[in-house]
Amino acid sequence: MPVNLNSPVAQDLLPVRGVKLGFAEAHIRKPDRKDLLVIQLAPGSRVAGVFTQNRFCAAPVVLCKEHLATGSEIRALVVNTGNANAGTGEDGMLRARRTCEALAGLLGCADNQVLPFSTGVIMEPLPVERVVAGLPACVDNLEEDNWLNAAQAIMTTDIVAKGTSRQVEIGGKTVTVTGIAKGSGMIHPNMATMLGYIATDASISQSALEAMIHHAVNRSFNCITVDGDTSTNDSLILMATGQNGGTEITETHGVEYKALRDAVTEVAAQLAQAIVRDGEGATKFMTINVEGGHDEAECRKIGYAIAHSPLIKTAFFASDPNLGRILAAIGYAGVADLDVNLIQLYLGDVLVAENGGRASSYQEADGQRVMKEPEITVRVVLGRGKAEATVWTCDFSYDYVKINADYRT
Amino acid sequence: MPVNLNSPVAQDLLPVRGVKLGFAEAHIRKPDRKDLLVIQLAPGSRVAGVFTQNRFCAAPVVLCKEHLATGSEIRALVVNTGNANAGTGEDGMLRARRTCEALAGLLGCADNQVLPFSTGVIMEPLPVERVVAGLPACVDNLEEDNWLNAAQAIMTTDIVAKGTSRQVEIGGKTVTVTGIAKGSGMIHPNMATMLGYIATDASISQSALEAMIHHAVNRSFNCITVDGDTSTNDSLILMATGQNGGTEITETHGVEYKALRDAVTEVAAQLAQAIVRDGEGATKFMTINVEGGHDEAECRKIGYAIAHSPLIKTAFFASDPNLGRILAAIGYAGVADLDVNLIQLYLGDVLVAENGGRASSYQEADGQRVMKEPEITVRVVLGRGKAEATVWTCDFSYDYVKINADYRT
Repeated sequence: MPVNLNSPVAQDLLPVRGVKLGFAEAHIRKPDRKDLLVIQLAPGSRVAGVFTQNRFCAAPVVLCKEHLATGSEIRALVVNTGNANAGTGEDGMLRARRTCEALAGLLGCADNQVLPFSTGVIMEPLPVERVVAGLPACVDNLEEDNWLNAAQAIMTTDIVAKGTSRQVEIGGKTVTVTGIAKGSGMIHPNMATMLGYIATDASISQSALEAMIHHAVNRSFNCITVDGDTSTNDSLILMATGQNGGTEITETHGVEYKALRDAVTEVAAQLAQAIVRDGEGATKFMTINVEGGHDEAECRKIGYAIAHSPLIKTAFFASDPNLGRILAAIGYAGVADLDVNLIQLYLGDVLVAENGGRASSYQEADGQRVMKEPEITVRVVLGRGKAEATVWTCDFSYDYVKINADYRT
Repeated sequence: MPVNLNSPVAQDLLPVRGVKLGFAEAHIRKPDRKDLLVIQLAPGSRVAGVFTQNRFCAAPVVLCKEHLATGSEIRALVVNTGNANAGTGEDGMLRARRTCEALAGLLGCADNQVLPFSTGVIMEPLPVERVVAGLPACVDNLEEDNWLNAAQAIMTTDIVAKGTSRQVEIGGKTVTVTGIAKGSGMIHPNMATMLGYIATDASISQSALEAMIHHAVNRSFNCITVDGDTSTNDSLILMATGQNGGTEITETHGVEYKALRDAVTEVAAQLAQAIVRDGEGATKFMTINVEGGHDEAECRKIGYAIAHSPLIKTAFFASDPNLGRILAAIGYAGVADLDVNLIQLYLGDVLVAENGGRASSYQEADGQRVMKEPEITVRVVLGRGKAEATVWTCDFSYDYVKINADYRT
């Protein structure tokens, strides 16, 4: 069961002027579920994206990058679930291109004004004829008020749909930011089997939009892990339609930029945390704070060593304060000159370890009390500098094995 | 259930002249089980060791290194299970020293002629009074023919005891090599919650012995992983008593050295594989061969990315040829300039992928046939060089979660 996460309802997801969404049941892998989404953007919209670092990145990722690189004005996005179109070679590229062509034909734009996305099983041919057959239905129901349907249409092993909105006043105008995301397994930074779409009706230049997406992703999707697997398809897209009537934001120092950046980052962080809360088989949500490091990189190394350890994740699942496993993970994280005698380890508000061993004040009952909570903060103080980093993760349960052993059946 | 692994019987483990072993039920953590082992070495024996790289290495590891560094002649080893004496700070060091003192007193040697080892739960005080109370019983039953009892006495979550022997003729004399090991979780190179003890009655110089242990460990314990966790206590010890009457081996180029080195490496590899076969919850044994790389390091990176992926490990558990997950792991292993179009992936004898996608000859039924086997070889051909590496691992089952969620209860 997702940890403290409810599916949004329609009124939680505010329409964004200039963004229409349409969906269909295209039967790409399974019947009777929404599995195809089209997002249409008003003329003049600007789009920025960040994508997986996986060398086996999927055909649609290659094509997204290619279309964005042409500098063409993006007018539509198309997302299918059920098949990742990854590990599919040249044939996969042809099928992704065919998808873009079909949607461009329906919308009356050029092929390179369409961005394609796929998620699902890897290394099987995309049933592109089903995708193409489903597109007219998507176009028929394009509406600004379709965000909840859109969030549902991109789900795979997700238990709940994920979406959130913010509104802020910028330069006397109301700006809306709405985002949706999917993902619950193969979750790791840079990035995840994670698709995220965040739209705003603010007006912003391309270069400021690019800066904003990197700021947001480093404080959200690049701070999460479920199982350490980086997928072939991860994509985050930030869209700005400029339809709210405000002045264009063109530089990254002003209060207008910062107000929009913070709203976008908040939406991204909430979506990222939602992915972990809905992590496959998750029963606990853990925040790993590592502070007092020389630099952020070593703090992240230690945070991820803790967050990836199957031994630690199963102990959290069991609510077992077997906290020596955390010390072991700190020790093998790869920070070569770490002085373990300077380290303090806290579980919630409880000091667990210091001076290279268990704290004299530590009582098992205190650790047990914290471990029973559904939301747990692990705090590691390295005592060697001022840098810090946060990683969000979940525990590792029987259901993780069950979900992944049965995924294709 | 361990994969194709039976516990050795007493006659499988040949005595090594100059090595006596004694055990006890010291009730360190649980009653009615052998949990304390003493190994006594004849005068003139030589000993080499390799130890965990974990910064939170256990007190006995620190003390082992300290005693070996003094150059004193090692006369005895003492191993307790039930408590790792790791993450225990200065107090842990005092308890490890107390253990050495007590055994040295019983055997009439100096404290620094004793090497201590501990395995079990981390960050709890070693009940040293129980260890000390159990030592006289160990000393009372010191026998050359106690290797099977010794293998049993060092088990923790192991299901079967692990040990093997080899005999070779060197310079007209019979040389015996016998080894035992324990470990089944927190298994990763450099090294594992892994204790290994290999003894021979050959005569060999200290420097040749040091070279030999590094050769052996890099082809055995440093090729395995169960869950990617590197423990605080891993230790491998190679002992040579020189009691077989042969000439001392002093250099590393001759046929005598190579004959002994190969026998020791075979014993080490069999013990390392036994640890994986008995991996926590294991139902499959996988050999990951990565070849055609620029260098061994990148081959190992890819091998470990595959071997560590929970998504791949659960797919093997389910006998599900969801082989795209292997491509994804190759892609995120961190080899930056990898050309995925050159890669070939084989499952057993079946070509699964080439040219960046699924091989045209690949049939799901062929993949399914291989996946049902209890022993599976994954072969990745990178097509960019001549280096290769092998990693052995096991699958990831419900029982892995069960064992680790319940470990302390």
